[in-house]
Amino acid sequence: MPAARQEGPLAIICGGGSLPLAVAEFVAGRGRPVVLFPIYGAAEGGSFERFTHHWVYVGQIGKFQRHARAAGCRDVVFIGALVRPSIWQVHPDFKGLTCVARTLAGMRGGDNHLLSTMGRILEQDGFRLLGAHEVAPEILVPQGTLARAQPTERDQGDIALGLDYLHAASPFDVGQAVVVAGRHVLAVEAAEGTDGMLDRVAALRASGRIRAPLGSGVLVKAPKRGQDLRFDMPSIGPRTVEGIVRAGLAGIAVVAGSTIVAEPERLVQAADRAKIFVIGIADGKVA
Amino acid sequence: MPAARQEGPLAIICGGGSLPLAVAEFVAGRGRPVVLFPIYGAAEGGSFERFTHHWVYVGQIGKFQRHARAAGCRDVVFIGALVRPSIWQVHPDFKGLTCVARTLAGMRGGDNHLLSTMGRILEQDGFRLLGAHEVAPEILVPQGTLARAQPTERDQGDIALGLDYLHAASPFDVGQAVVVAGRHVLAVEAAEGTDGMLDRVAALRASGRIRAPLGSGVLVKAPKRGQDLRFDMPSIGPRTVEGIVRAGLAGIAVVAGSTIVAEPERLVQAADRAKIFVIGIADGKVA
Repeated sequence: MPAARQEGPLAIICGGGSLPLAVAEFVAGRGRPVVLFPIYGAAEGGSFERFTHHWVYVGQIGKFQRHARAAGCRDVVFIGALVRPSIWQVHPDFKGLTCVARTLAGMRGGDNHLLSTMGRILEQDGFRLLGAHEVAPEILVPQGTLARAQPTERDQGDIALGLDYLHAASPFDVGQAVVVAGRHVLAVEAAEGTDGMLDRVAALRASGRIRAPLGSGVLVKAPKRGQDLRFDMPSIGPRTVEGIVRAGLAGIAVVAGSTIVAEPERLVQAADRAKIFVIGIADGKVA
Repeated sequence: MPAARQEGPLAIICGGGSLPLAVAEFVAGRGRPVVLFPIYGAAEGGSFERFTHHWVYVGQIGKFQRHARAAGCRDVVFIGALVRPSIWQVHPDFKGLTCVARTLAGMRGGDNHLLSTMGRILEQDGFRLLGAHEVAPEILVPQGTLARAQPTERDQGDIALGLDYLHAASPFDVGQAVVVAGRHVLAVEAAEGTDGMLDRVAALRASGRIRAPLGSGVLVKAPKRGQDLRFDMPSIGPRTVEGIVRAGLAGIAVVAGSTIVAEPERLVQAADRAKIFVIGIADGKVA
């Protein structure tokens, strides 16, 4: 791919989980060099030594920019989990400090604004921010079911209600996920994240507060309207399936082409073992 | 009050908490006799011996109707907390069994439908269902602040956003409450209830996942659109204030005239001790 080579190497800022290395491998496999920037406090445990890499603290925007420019990177991708850092983990360098005011201003508006503020800072300095799915479309959930189990008609009703709810709540920059069972919204995700929400459903089941029978109910995830998918995309992985099993649900529905799947083989194996369905829905409509 | 006497005694079906006895006292204090029906598994611990009373299981609709008719009651009020009973706590009598199919059908649509189905059954049998606030308006939150603390301008912004969110989510028969801090929705209530949601916010704070400083953020509660206030009204009490303190929030905002307050003196004392504001907002708008 000569076009890719003309674009120069790709800088990948790496949060936690397996996705950053998966993206690096897909991109490198296509012949485009990558330079990784694993973030302290998030990316520990990854095998970054296979690639050129530089560890950075969240606030070391200057260090990142120096290394990225020296390597000839103009394109930047951010990928992986990033719990909002405690102020002690930020370690801002001089460039980072000059950004603090704007970043704090962005934080008031929720995660979307925080991340897009940081993105704007990089773009003003001449970088181009891409979504991980643009450089490695292999990580996206396709349309249709990923594992053997299929959603029932009842599940499809729950999926439709969940998508309607997420659509209605979308202007509020709140969570991207709900649990629906028997046409009843059991849980809505906000700051606790999807895993936290699934744990709550498991606890509600254990205390008998959920009427819907074991093995019914669906986790529905969708991007927020206007969400900048370059920073924050709905994602699922093997851990999501574990949460579904603990919560006693029937399956997972996400928006095809707008959802990232981490470790797809392990996810499908776990789903098949637990007889959980995993479905990519076409653009907000039930397939 | 001769009108009240013409209406005959009032049947009060009593769930948990202090509200059923408070309502009974307000109604009896106005000269109208009351007959209480405390529910096993919910109302234990109340001092019902001061009034004529008959303990019932949730499913003993026949027993309830016999005693209520024998006492000359046509008007019925349901008040107090009622966690969805486990099937073993229902103890249906014959009349209860005939209602089971319709009640189960109602359950699929969420709490609203469950309660309104039970209400329709009583009304078809000649009873008249009233809201507790109709017979004892003293239990409603009035407009304005209840305790000494006042919401700041920042709090008022959070309240407005919370009411907007609840309005948008209202068609889905989901929770009636959110926590908003710094114009960011931190938590949305569904099946876990308000206390469960406040515990979650406390845990998120403890783990450093909430940016908003301690002592900021608001619990906002509002009735669902079209909610039948005779069965299920947003309510607050001293325990809500305890939850607010644990969650590190600034205060509580509810809709004046559509929210019940349990033990108002204890609530105000607890709020003043913790410097928490408690405000009744006029009809969905920030006062």
